[in-house]
Amino acid sequence: MSSVERGSFASLPDLMIEPLVRAALAEDLGRAGDITSNACIPGDDRLKAAFVARKPGVVAGLACARLALACLDPTAHFHPRAADGDAVAAGAVLAEIVGQARAVLSAERVALNLFSRLSGVATLTATYVAKTAGTRARIIDTRKTTPLLRALEKYAVRCGGGANHRFGLDDAILIKDNHVAACGGVGPALRRVREHAGHMVKIEVEVDSLEQLREALDHRPDVIMLDNFALPDLETAVALASGRAILEASGGVNLDTVQAIARTGVDYISVGALTHSAPILDIGLDAV
Amino acid sequence: MSSVERGSFASLPDLMIEPLVRAALAEDLGRAGDITSNACIPGDDRLKAAFVARKPGVVAGLACARLALACLDPTAHFHPRAADGDAVAAGAVLAEIVGQARAVLSAERVALNLFSRLSGVATLTATYVAKTAGTRARIIDTRKTTPLLRALEKYAVRCGGGANHRFGLDDAILIKDNHVAACGGVGPALRRVREHAGHMVKIEVEVDSLEQLREALDHRPDVIMLDNFALPDLETAVALASGRAILEASGGVNLDTVQAIARTGVDYISVGALTHSAPILDIGLDAV
Amino acid sequence: MSSVERGSFASLPDLMIEPLVRAALAEDLGRAGDITSNACIPGDDRLKAAFVARKPGVVAGLACARLALACLDPTAHFHPRAADGDAVAAGAVLAEIVGQARAVLSAERVALNLFSRLSGVATLTATYVAKTAGTRARIIDTRKTTPLLRALEKYAVRCGGGANHRFGLDDAILIKDNHVAACGGVGPALRRVREHAGHMVKIEVEVDSLEQLREALDHRPDVIMLDNFALPDLETAVALASGRAILEASGGVNLDTVQAIARTGVDYISVGALTHSAPILDIGLDAV
Amino acid sequence: MSSVERGSFASLPDLMIEPLVRAALAEDLGRAGDITSNACIPGDDRLKAAFVARKPGVVAGLACARLALACLDPTAHFHPRAADGDAVAAGAVLAEIVGQARAVLSAERVALNLFSRLSGVATLTATYVAKTAGTRARIIDTRKTTPLLRALEKYAVRCGGGANHRFGLDDAILIKDNHVAACGGVGPALRRVREHAGHMVKIEVEVDSLEQLREALDHRPDVIMLDNFALPDLETAVALASGRAILEASGGVNLDTVQAIARTGVDYISVGALTHSAPILDIGLDAV
Amino acid sequence: MSSVERGSFASLPDLMIEPLVRAALAEDLGRAGDITSNACIPGDDRLKAAFVARKPGVVAGLACARLALACLDPTAHFHPRAADGDAVAAGAVLAEIVGQARAVLSAERVALNLFSRLSGVATLTATYVAKTAGTRARIIDTRKTTPLLRALEKYAVRCGGGANHRFGLDDAILIKDNHVAACGGVGPALRRVREHAGHMVKIEVEVDSLEQLREALDHRPDVIMLDNFALPDLETAVALASGRAILEASGGVNLDTVQAIARTGVDYISVGALTHSAPILDIGLDAV
Amino acid sequence: MSSVERGSFASLPDLMIEPLVRAALAEDLGRAGDITSNACIPGDDRLKAAFVARKPGVVAGLACARLALACLDPTAHFHPRAADGDAVAAGAVLAEIVGQARAVLSAERVALNLFSRLSGVATLTATYVAKTAGTRARIIDTRKTTPLLRALEKYAVRCGGGANHRFGLDDAILIKDNHVAACGGVGPALRRVREHAGHMVKIEVEVDSLEQLREALDHRPDVIMLDNFALPDLETAVALASGRAILEASGGVNLDTVQAIARTGVDYISVGALTHSAPILDIGLDAV
Repeated sequence: MSSVERGSFASLPDLMIEPLVRAALAEDLGRAGDITSNACIPGDDRLKAAFVARKPGVVAGLACARLALACLDPTAHFHPRAADGDAVAAGAVLAEIVGQARAVLSAERVALNLFSRLSGVATLTATYVAKTAGTRARIIDTRKTTPLLRALEKYAVRCGGGANHRFGLDDAILIKDNHVAACGGVGPALRRVREHAGHMVKIEVEVDSLEQLREALDHRPDVIMLDNFALPDLETAVALASGRAILEASGGVNLDTVQAIARTGVDYISVGALTHSAPILDIGLDAV
Repeated sequence: MSSVERGSFASLPDLMIEPLVRAALAEDLGRAGDITSNACIPGDDRLKAAFVARKPGVVAGLACARLALACLDPTAHFHPRAADGDAVAAGAVLAEIVGQARAVLSAERVALNLFSRLSGVATLTATYVAKTAGTRARIIDTRKTTPLLRALEKYAVRCGGGANHRFGLDDAILIKDNHVAACGGVGPALRRVREHAGHMVKIEVEVDSLEQLREALDHRPDVIMLDNFALPDLETAVALASGRAILEASGGVNLDTVQAIARTGVDYISVGALTHSAPILDIGLDAV
Repeated sequence: MSSVERGSFASLPDLMIEPLVRAALAEDLGRAGDITSNACIPGDDRLKAAFVARKPGVVAGLACARLALACLDPTAHFHPRAADGDAVAAGAVLAEIVGQARAVLSAERVALNLFSRLSGVATLTATYVAKTAGTRARIIDTRKTTPLLRALEKYAVRCGGGANHRFGLDDAILIKDNHVAACGGVGPALRRVREHAGHMVKIEVEVDSLEQLREALDHRPDVIMLDNFALPDLETAVALASGRAILEASGGVNLDTVQAIARTGVDYISVGALTHSAPILDIGLDAV
Repeated sequence: MSSVERGSFASLPDLMIEPLVRAALAEDLGRAGDITSNACIPGDDRLKAAFVARKPGVVAGLACARLALACLDPTAHFHPRAADGDAVAAGAVLAEIVGQARAVLSAERVALNLFSRLSGVATLTATYVAKTAGTRARIIDTRKTTPLLRALEKYAVRCGGGANHRFGLDDAILIKDNHVAACGGVGPALRRVREHAGHMVKIEVEVDSLEQLREALDHRPDVIMLDNFALPDLETAVALASGRAILEASGGVNLDTVQAIARTGVDYISVGALTHSAPILDIGLDAV
Repeated sequence: MSSVERGSFASLPDLMIEPLVRAALAEDLGRAGDITSNACIPGDDRLKAAFVARKPGVVAGLACARLALACLDPTAHFHPRAADGDAVAAGAVLAEIVGQARAVLSAERVALNLFSRLSGVATLTATYVAKTAGTRARIIDTRKTTPLLRALEKYAVRCGGGANHRFGLDDAILIKDNHVAACGGVGPALRRVREHAGHMVKIEVEVDSLEQLREALDHRPDVIMLDNFALPDLETAVALASGRAILEASGGVNLDTVQAIARTGVDYISVGALTHSAPILDIGLDAV
Repeated sequence: MSSVERGSFASLPDLMIEPLVRAALAEDLGRAGDITSNACIPGDDRLKAAFVARKPGVVAGLACARLALACLDPTAHFHPRAADGDAVAAGAVLAEIVGQARAVLSAERVALNLFSRLSGVATLTATYVAKTAGTRARIIDTRKTTPLLRALEKYAVRCGGGANHRFGLDDAILIKDNHVAACGGVGPALRRVREHAGHMVKIEVEVDSLEQLREALDHRPDVIMLDNFALPDLETAVALASGRAILEASGGVNLDTVQAIARTGVDYISVGALTHSAPILDIGLDAV
């Protein structure tokens, strides 16, 4: 169990997670609650169990598992045996719990749905990060997240060693093709946003050719997104920019292509799949 | 564009979707709204655009795309060019829209996040369904869904030609290993739930051996889940049950194994991956 | 104080009750809070009090009373002296509490509104159940519940020795006259739902004549509702069905008629009045 | 169809009702929606139907029925054929509706649950009001209302010709026995609240003897509640007060006793049963 | 540190404040939380700090500061060193806290935004109250409050020694010019509301001339608002009323005019500025 | 009526405002609604009215007024006669409305509470902006906003010609004294955040001396906040920075000092009072 090397992160306050966990429990309990456990298990039975990774991966979302249990049994105990960001082997115990048996079984699915999904994101991120070892490129996410889970999924990306792109439409400027078209070019678009953007807001522009890149560089955006550039064009772009702007490669990124992209010298590589197509990390809850 | 053959489904009422769409828009708009579009695009500009499938797949979630737009521009027009459940080719236009340009661009990501995710679930389901063609087996989902999206993801499974397992802890009995352990066996567990379960509630029990299957059959549950049975055991189970209970195969199901499992004669095959690990269907919004 | 004999039930998790209790307290406290208690009672006064049944009845909803108090004074003590499902005599102490006097008095009405209402449902249910003693018939509820209180009222029905019909439009099929009309008959309707219904969903059909009953029996629904059948017809129906379907009598059920209906041999008797017209059980909070 | 004579009322704005109706629909639709109607009825079928009173009574809550339908089919038509407050005969058509058949059937139960419950409150209120004809006494409600329905139930009381007592703990002072005890008497309690109460807040005190009444009268509260007074004591109280305070009789009020109480000359008679124990008015939705 | 003399008040229950505090924290934490503190401060660092008044004023809202911290660190300690309603000097320590450093810093702004705003309202109120010393007039607020903060701001007015006017449109009658116009005069308006108003509801009417005042007095409202009366007219009004109604002066009230208005003998002076234009009391959080 | 010169802004989508407006209406309507208007005004009366500025100022929040009315009367008409950002004279008509009289009067206070508050913020901002005419300095806001109104108040600052600082704890880094202390200096703090901050996030550090400024400049933050610098030190700071970082003056800013501060050459001047202490702009609703 060793922690991911690059990056570092603080867990989200419970205040930001608990409403989601409560809503997820309510969704699963429906109007009658866990009728199977209620029928089969006496109300004062207790259960000891462990969250166990069935496959190797990177852990993210222990707090979700803890809160799911705590919401149904405030007196339950949750003992983490790993930390978010840890790379674990198959069979690793991630946390041990003791609580009312009904509460444990009723909370199980919600706990796992969140925990395994976030660990899946972290694990896929770590896979991408590993492919870029030895380069300057950092793996970043996008806004292609699961509705209502953005904060958690972006946290999971950090757990996997990745970094975050903007969190919403409001915390950074990202000029895309439709904006460029509406403004009549990359340059006019950058001039326009410069007039409007607050001084605490970074400005990124998407370009799809070296020509657009040159125009963009003249207007000094903070970041330039190179959209679907071929590898040689990425190299040319890095040379052209020579540090005048942060360069983000985007489009056509997958586990087969990411290493070559990283070696072109770009600063960031954004990967929508981290959050829109990550398979879960298989985690189970085993009675002890 | 031909619709999925097996299964049929009605769309969810807007009342069940709109609160989620609103919350997703609020998540993306944050506190300042779409600062890029606001800076680049005049308030009265209009935009015509089309949702286009970039890959072949099965459509699910048109209503989410429609509502995301309607929430930001109630006067916008949304013209569907496909229907949920349609299998479409790469390049297929799924819907055409016209509305305020800012609203279209601000709603785009939320619309796509839901639409492409649900279509991804439908597409993966359809792939499993296709593998079981010519068998009696139906592909079903599990409770391993995205928190707060269960109703929509299970709808997407229906769009893909699959069927739904229970929707929550409360609408059907599913006796699992921990319940069996607490009751002291499959038989006692079935007796116990029979005393408690309402008459409108189906009863399923999970068994992990032919011996447990025999015990279960004696107590006439509605459904028996065969957990991680080897293929020969599945065949034996089908013969043993001979119609006395519905049989559901579960565990170790993937695109390589599903056909052989289906050919054993089981009635249902449950696949958690339909909702916990489906990659999105790549859908884009192209300005026209 | 002896517990109701038939039936058994687990209490709902606090997570399912507390949001309702909080909302009810907010409704009563309004914008200024309990201005009378604030004016009359020093902030550090404590009060010892007891919930007392003023009439005989069956208890349901102790958790609501407990949570109403806990929401206003988390340090208060709540000592139950009875359990949900207990049949109690007039004067019985149901729970003793100690807490900040202001909190006790501010929570009193919300606690009683829920507690006495649910106990009223349980009490009326128990009265119906008692009338059917010695028959196979079980008393069940309907969807004619108070908006937003369905889970609690159906729980109260269980406390009173009754059983639950479906909890909503989504957890079981119930084909009614309008559905039959739209499908062109009981048979076509049953065929239609059979194609659509998930395998974990029970199917019930309402019939209003012996002829329709015969047609229904041919299609093997799980349950058949005999709507407003005369007593002789109910007996005929029981004979006709001879165990091929569960039979539910519905319509015209009241305390005068229920015994005769039960004696016809039907399996279930549904009574809307359990939840739509039950008078409260008179419970008071007495300072000790 | 003639309207209730005494009293008059304005309907609540939709803004105050719609959130409750939406929540009630969500409660009933659950996670899968109306699976029966979806299976049986084509999506474009339309249905014409009428809300019909099956018993005579007083109407309250037409807006709830209208909104339940509108929430599921915004294009549906709702034609009221009666008005809230109308006394109607059995068989009276209260409203006619046309809309998507699925929406009509899905909304039916929620519409009826609210409409019949509120009409039940109005009907019971009107019955009490009728018993007090020819006296000065007005029938009023209490805070013994259904949680989350207080505004609607108190509206229904007005529809039935009754008047409202306070709406919550915050909009008027009501000194009860525990407050009197904490202050050391009716007089000290009235002095205490007089110091604290805003000038826009009425003050009522509960007394349980003529002696306490005399003490109360000396302190000029706006209203005095005579709690469980025998009839002769009520008459004495009226004479004693001789207009110096509004007198409210409370406790032991039922349809057998209310007339005699009214004839003692008290100003108001509060009846908890109006809202805590009113049976519904039987209303049905008939396809036309 | 001496407490405000006139008036007295009880604090609001946490139940009424906490949802607002949680929402305010969520607004400030956004989707990524406090990224500065997370980067700079180790997760287990603790911080001791004090809320300190930077200017003299009257304290209101300690509970808001306490809850903001408790929501982010339930184990934190909050030691009040002053009480709501206290008049404090610049430099006064209002509360000392110890908790996780990240939680303290993340909660700081929300705690101060509420605490300093409410203390600002209390301070401005106390200033007005001081100006009316020696008169019978009490300073009262209006409905010109900050949306969603009405209960808290009216509490702050009480902390400052003021009293509250009505809390909303529903808890008292206030007939204004448009109502008078619709009814055809002050007299008809008073007759109309008298027919409709519940007996627990006070009635106030706004008049803008001595003539209207005379008409109003004939109908015995509880309170008469003298709108924008000149000082001599106020004096005449007091003489005219001679105790038959409570008189409230309104309009044109500021710190320069309030004393003269108070000396006319009116009972109440309402000041919208207390809540719509009060500057904050400058409070800081200093690390200790 | 001329629009503010510097700055430009887009209005917030209704989706971001309407929930707040609805909540504010619910707060004001309480449980019984507008009992005065309901008593005095027939349900089908219509009213024509105009929002009128009683004092000169800058307009912000027309959409709030429009939505407050629309929420109570969806068929009402709202005709803006000014635009957000307009500087208007006393007496200027800002919008004309026609709708149901009850709805207009019930919505009036909520409409005004939001509209006049936001216009107050815009007006105060414009006053500060006017004082800095001819300098490079822009007036910016802080996080000292009214809880739950941050998005609207920051919008009002833009309407007044100001610009926005960060919107929350999560969209930009702002290293303050406690962070510096925890890291052991300005330099270490900047190094620490540089490792953690995403590339789309700007970094600002607060310094309280020229020495700290020099240390900060070495680490190239995007922005440096000069906290409570004397005027000569501000000038020295501008010279020292010479464009290497954006400089923000903070602390001790008021209408008397802002011009001199602006003339030192700083880029931004942050003013907490814009949102924490702005008096409202007096706006009234006059029946026409």
